[in-house]
Amino acid sequence: MPVITPIILCGGSGTRLWPRSRAVKPKPFLPLVGEATLFEATLARCADPAVFAPPIVVTGRDHLEHVTAQSQVAAGLQIIVEPAARNTAPAVALAAARLPAEAIMLVCPSDHYIGDRAAFIGAAQSAAALAADGWMVAFGIEAVSPETGFGYILRGTAIDHGGYRIERFVEKPDRDRAAQFLADGGYSWNGGIFAFRAGDYLTELERYRPEMARLVRKSVSEGVQDGAQFYPDADAFAAIERESVDYAVMENTSRAAVIPADMGWSDIGNWTALHEARSRDAAGNSVTGKAELIDCSNVMVETDGPRVSIIGLQDVVVVVDGNEVLIVSAAGAQQVGKLNGAENQ
Amino acid sequence: MPVITPIILCGGSGTRLWPRSRAVKPKPFLPLVGEATLFEATLARCADPAVFAPPIVVTGRDHLEHVTAQSQVAAGLQIIVEPAARNTAPAVALAAARLPAEAIMLVCPSDHYIGDRAAFIGAAQSAAALAADGWMVAFGIEAVSPETGFGYILRGTAIDHGGYRIERFVEKPDRDRAAQFLADGGYSWNGGIFAFRAGDYLTELERYRPEMARLVRKSVSEGVQDGAQFYPDADAFAAIERESVDYAVMENTSRAAVIPADMGWSDIGNWTALHEARSRDAAGNSVTGKAELIDCSNVMVETDGPRVSIIGLQDVVVVVDGNEVLIVSAAGAQQVGKLNGAENQ
Repeated sequence: MPVITPIILCGGSGTRLWPRSRAVKPKPFLPLVGEATLFEATLARCADPAVFAPPIVVTGRDHLEHVTAQSQVAAGLQIIVEPAARNTAPAVALAAARLPAEAIMLVCPSDHYIGDRAAFIGAAQSAAALAADGWMVAFGIEAVSPETGFGYILRGTAIDHGGYRIERFVEKPDRDRAAQFLADGGYSWNGGIFAFRAGDYLTELERYRPEMARLVRKSVSEGVQDGAQFYPDADAFAAIERESVDYAVMENTSRAAVIPADMGWSDIGNWTALHEARSRDAAGNSVTGKAELIDCSNVMVETDGPRVSIIGLQDVVVVVDGNEVLIVSAAGAQQVGKLNGAENQ
Repeated sequence: MPVITPIILCGGSGTRLWPRSRAVKPKPFLPLVGEATLFEATLARCADPAVFAPPIVVTGRDHLEHVTAQSQVAAGLQIIVEPAARNTAPAVALAAARLPAEAIMLVCPSDHYIGDRAAFIGAAQSAAALAADGWMVAFGIEAVSPETGFGYILRGTAIDHGGYRIERFVEKPDRDRAAQFLADGGYSWNGGIFAFRAGDYLTELERYRPEMARLVRKSVSEGVQDGAQFYPDADAFAAIERESVDYAVMENTSRAAVIPADMGWSDIGNWTALHEARSRDAAGNSVTGKAELIDCSNVMVETDGPRVSIIGLQDVVVVVDGNEVLIVSAAGAQQVGKLNGAENQ
């Protein structure tokens, strides 16, 4: 089995989990499910030294304080501090450029929830084996509902290690098309988890995004190491255009593969998704903090102090955080990021 | 036109308006509709010296501070401080025993809302005219919905001044019976507003509740005047059994009359009733304090500080008061008094 280097990406603001997730302390650094934060849980999932090398965290200056505070236990952890946010393709390239060409990278978002750790490890090992054969591998998350907020991956012909060639990537579909995908059965969600050799990633980036590859190389060669932290050159990095790993590499390479992963995954993309990831009582209610519920079902309450008393509600999330109270229906959860409070932080 | 002495009753706790209404500052003393408190609005409605004599307020020690603070403008106001809460029949008897026999009393709860002041004055004058003829008059509130929380009054034969003999009083009916009353058309709500001569009230009380009449007389004769405040004797008053004006007198007297009153009345009996009494926008929403509503209809928000952001709710009341947050459906409004917060104050 090849040893895997976890590349843990800490960006994003998580405005749809406002007011708990705020610009100053966003989603990855909050204990949203259980006692660990999503970032801590991501580190813990990749902590077995028989499978994983010490992780590389790629994050921005704004989040550095949280990363260092929450990664004390991860021995040998390296941090790459992005001078600017440029989406995932350049972030992953920074890590790739700092690794030997044959190193197997596992790109992990740090703001997702994965309930079944063993299934994750299994999928990671299959993906790593494919990567060692030169494949660029995406995790294909078992699609369990016709979500319109995710990209989809269509499986092609089977290859080794339980993987498949990727027939194509599909942009976020509308509800009808998503339902069709689900009925078809050949589609998975694209969870943004990837495995490839560092050298292969850089080779493909060089081929499809040569300017990005050049600027990343320059930024790394002119960067500064400070203890466990590496600071790429800011000018070179700032000149890079924002682009995701999907767009820049995965949708272009002829070696794209998918490894199916059924591992209790959730992107915790909004309050309703978080409610579903939490443990609930027989009525579907979930309470964190001081609350009393009468005649309620599928209600989630999270309060950091005030008591919340609710009578006669269904399918609602209530969050009390400091000087903000959010009350949102299941149907309205996607709109939380549009609230004045979430936008004007 | 006879001059009318308003008897303003300040008791009750209003637990169904928790957490705004609390034991230490209950419903009558809160600005629930508009800027005046319900008590202040009750005083203001009876302030025209061409119609009304200075009012007598009957209240308990617990509320005395609020009564004095909120009645500065009422010239000549007298306060009777009840030594104990014994419901309305003894409270009204205290006031009656302190007035000349021919004085016309108008008994007014101080925790109701009346939107149409002119209609109130008109009904009060008709009731006073009937009282001057020896009738014991109840206001019959125009019934506009099949409420199960009110007592009903059935009109009998017409008498003078637009009034009717009372055919009978009906206890709080169930929903079907209430709907039948509404269809019938001869029924009004009993709003607890009464007019009679002080002497007539005491005569009827003597006839139907002689022990209560005796103890009230004793309590008054042994009471102490202190400025504008009168303190009936505590021992005599404490021995009285609790009973309402309705039970002790109105349902027994052969001189019961009703004067129909269509005056925008609400008992503000719960949060939904309060929402209905407030001004609302085109979507039926009403906001007091800092709030943002998206895709909401018939939502009322009242917050004393924190911002409340709501998405996708209908027919809900949200109240933020100090360290309490209440969220209640229209259907659940009657249950607010059962919440731990409301019960354990």
